[in-house]
Amino acid sequence: MTTRMAQEIAEQPEAVERTLDALLPRREEIRRLAEGRSHVLFVARGSSCNAAVYGRYLLEVHTDRGAALAAPSLATHYEIRRELSDSLVVSLSQSGQTEEIVATQRWAADNGAATIAITNGADSALVGGADLALVTEAGPELAVPATKSYTTQLAALAVLADAFGPPEATLEPALRTVPEAIATLLEARSGVDAAVEALVATDDSIVTGRGLVFPTALEVALKLEETSLEPVRSLSYADLRHGPIAIVDPELAAVIVAAQDGPMTGGMVDLARDLGQRGAVTIAIGGDEELRRTADVTVPGPHLPEPVAPLGLIVPAQLVVETLARRRGLDPDTPRGLSKVTQTDVPAADPA
Amino acid sequence: MTTRMAQEIAEQPEAVERTLDALLPRREEIRRLAEGRSHVLFVARGSSCNAAVYGRYLLEVHTDRGAALAAPSLATHYEIRRELSDSLVVSLSQSGQTEEIVATQRWAADNGAATIAITNGADSALVGGADLALVTEAGPELAVPATKSYTTQLAALAVLADAFGPPEATLEPALRTVPEAIATLLEARSGVDAAVEALVATDDSIVTGRGLVFPTALEVALKLEETSLEPVRSLSYADLRHGPIAIVDPELAAVIVAAQDGPMTGGMVDLARDLGQRGAVTIAIGGDEELRRTADVTVPGPHLPEPVAPLGLIVPAQLVVETLARRRGLDPDTPRGLSKVTQTDVPAADPA
Repeated sequence: MTTRMAQEIAEQPEAVERTLDALLPRREEIRRLAEGRSHVLFVARGSSCNAAVYGRYLLEVHTDRGAALAAPSLATHYEIRRELSDSLVVSLSQSGQTEEIVATQRWAADNGAATIAITNGADSALVGGADLALVTEAGPELAVPATKSYTTQLAALAVLADAFGPPEATLEPALRTVPEAIATLLEARSGVDAAVEALVATDDSIVTGRGLVFPTALEVALKLEETSLEPVRSLSYADLRHGPIAIVDPELAAVIVAAQDGPMTGGMVDLARDLGQRGAVTIAIGGDEELRRTADVTVPGPHLPEPVAPLGLIVPAQLVVETLARRRGLDPDTPRGLSKVTQTDVPAADPA
Repeated sequence: MTTRMAQEIAEQPEAVERTLDALLPRREEIRRLAEGRSHVLFVARGSSCNAAVYGRYLLEVHTDRGAALAAPSLATHYEIRRELSDSLVVSLSQSGQTEEIVATQRWAADNGAATIAITNGADSALVGGADLALVTEAGPELAVPATKSYTTQLAALAVLADAFGPPEATLEPALRTVPEAIATLLEARSGVDAAVEALVATDDSIVTGRGLVFPTALEVALKLEETSLEPVRSLSYADLRHGPIAIVDPELAAVIVAAQDGPMTGGMVDLARDLGQRGAVTIAIGGDEELRRTADVTVPGPHLPEPVAPLGLIVPAQLVVETLARRRGLDPDTPRGLSKVTQTDVPAADPA
C-alpha cells in the first residue's frame, strides 16, 4: 500500500516547478515592498520554522540584508512594542491558519513592518493580513508530516532571497534544475533501505548539518521524531562539537546532511570520521565524494549547488522517514497525537 | 565525596554577587558605547549560547532594542560582508579562548559593529579584541559542565539589558536579591532527590520552557546530556505543541521549567496537564502554585520575578544534574569526551 506521505513526496518535482513558475515573476514586486528595509525577520513554527532558518541563512549568505528569527511570544505574550520601520517581516505557515503566526504578523504590521506571507493556504488569514503573499503551489497536502508544502516553502524563500541578491549571480538557473534533481533522487531511491536498517538497529539517533543545510538537519530530525515517535536531536556541526558529542557511542546513529560543495564539506568529513571513531553508525545524506567514502551508509543527495541544495537534500531523507515509519509498523500519514493545522495556543491578548 | 561540580554550584551566591558588584557600575559605559545602535547581535556556542538566548529575550522584553543571535559560520566560513554600523555585537565565551567566537567578534568589528565581550577569562583573546569587556567574577571553574560561569554570564547580561532599559523600572533591586535566593535553594535542596529518581526510572527525557525561561530549558537539557551521556531534547512550549508532543508517552520524563510569575505561567500549567494525560512523568522546576499542584514531582524555584528568574531557576536543576550523574555511576566533573576550553574548529580562513 502506498501511503499519502509517499504520494506527496513523489509529487514534489511538479509542486516545486509550479511554485517557481508562480513566484519567480514576482521578484520586482518583492523588491519594491522591501525598499529601504535592511533587516528581515522570519516568523514561523515547526517545519515552517525549519524552512525559515534556510531563508535566514540564504538571505545572509546571498544578499546584503541581515536576517533573524522572531520569537512570536514577544508579540503574543509579552506584547512588546518594537520599531520595525527598517524591517521586512516574513511569516510562514503551511496552512496559513496558525493563530500565533497570524497574530504575530498583525503585531509586526502594527509596529511599522512591511509584511510578506509564505503559505500554501491561498485564502488563509495569513494571506489576508499580509502586504504581499507568496502562495506556494503544493496543492492539497493530506499526510500530517509536511513534505511538498515544505519544499515549496524553500522554493518561495529562494525566490525571496534572489529578489534581493546580486542580479549577476541570480539563483534562477540553479533553481530551474531543482525539479529534475528531485525526480532523479526519487527514481533512484539509492541508499534508502540501508539507512532505514541502520536506524532500526540503533537505540538513538541524532542529525547534524551546518550552515545553509543546517535547516535540513532540523527538518530531518523533526520528521523522524514526528513519524517514529522517538526523540531525535538535531545539532549544528559546531553545537555538537561543543558538548553533546559526549553522548556519541555505538548505540547511536548519526545522520549527517551535507551539500555536494561549499565551505562546509571538509568539516563534515572530519565530523563523520570523529563520530565513526566514537563508535556511532554514520549515515551520510548528500555530501561530497570524501563524505561518501567516510560514512558507514551513504544516501546520495541532489546535484545542486549549496545555496539551493536544501530543496533537494530533504527528499531522500523524506524517503528514509516514510520507509522507517512503515518498517516500525507505524502510520506515517497520521502520527499519534498530531493534526494538520497546528495551533500552539490562543494568544493571551490580541496584540493589535 | 563532593564533586568539583557540586562545590562550584555551591559557590554561586558569592560568584553572582561579585559579578553584580563589578558590572552594575558599568552601565553608563555600556550605554555610551551602544549609542545609536538599535540592534544587538549575540555570538556564542554551547552554554554561552543558552545564556545569550536569555540576553536576547531580556533585551527584547525589557528594552526598545531588537536582538538576535548571529550564526558564526556566516563570518568564519561564508565570510560575508554585512553593514553592522547600527549594531552592537555581544560575544560570550566562558574561557574567552574559543577561536570561532574570537574570529566572529573580529569580523563584527571589521564590519563596523561596536563589540562587547562577556567572559570569565580576564586575559583572554576575546577581551583583547573587544571595545568593552564585561568580565564575570566566577573565579576558576574546574568541572567541565559550566555552572557558576553560566549564572555569572546571566548576571552580566541582566546588567547589559538594564543599561538599556527604562531607569524607572531598573532591574537592580531584583538582581540584588539573586544571591540570597540562590543560597536559599542550595540549602533546601527540595525535590532534588525525587526528580533524580523520576529521571532514573524513565527511558527518555525532554525539557520545556517558554519565553524568558526558555533558555533555562535549553541549559538544563544540555547539562543533562553532557553529564548523563544520553540525548535530551529541549523544546519551547510552542515548538513542543507543534509536532514533537507526539513522542510523549509513559516512558518519557518531561521537565518543565517556569518562573513564579509572568505571562507564561498559565500556559505552562496547561502543558503540564497535557503531558501528564499523555502518560509522561512531569517534573516541574519552579512555576507557580498551580504548576506545583499539577506536576508529578516538584522542585521549587527561586522567589525572583520572571525577568531575573533564570539566574536562580537553573540552580536546583544543576543539583538534579549533578546528583543524577553520580546516581548513574558517572563522573559529573569530566564527562567522557569533553574538555574545558571548547574549540569547534579552526576557521576556514581568517575573516579579518
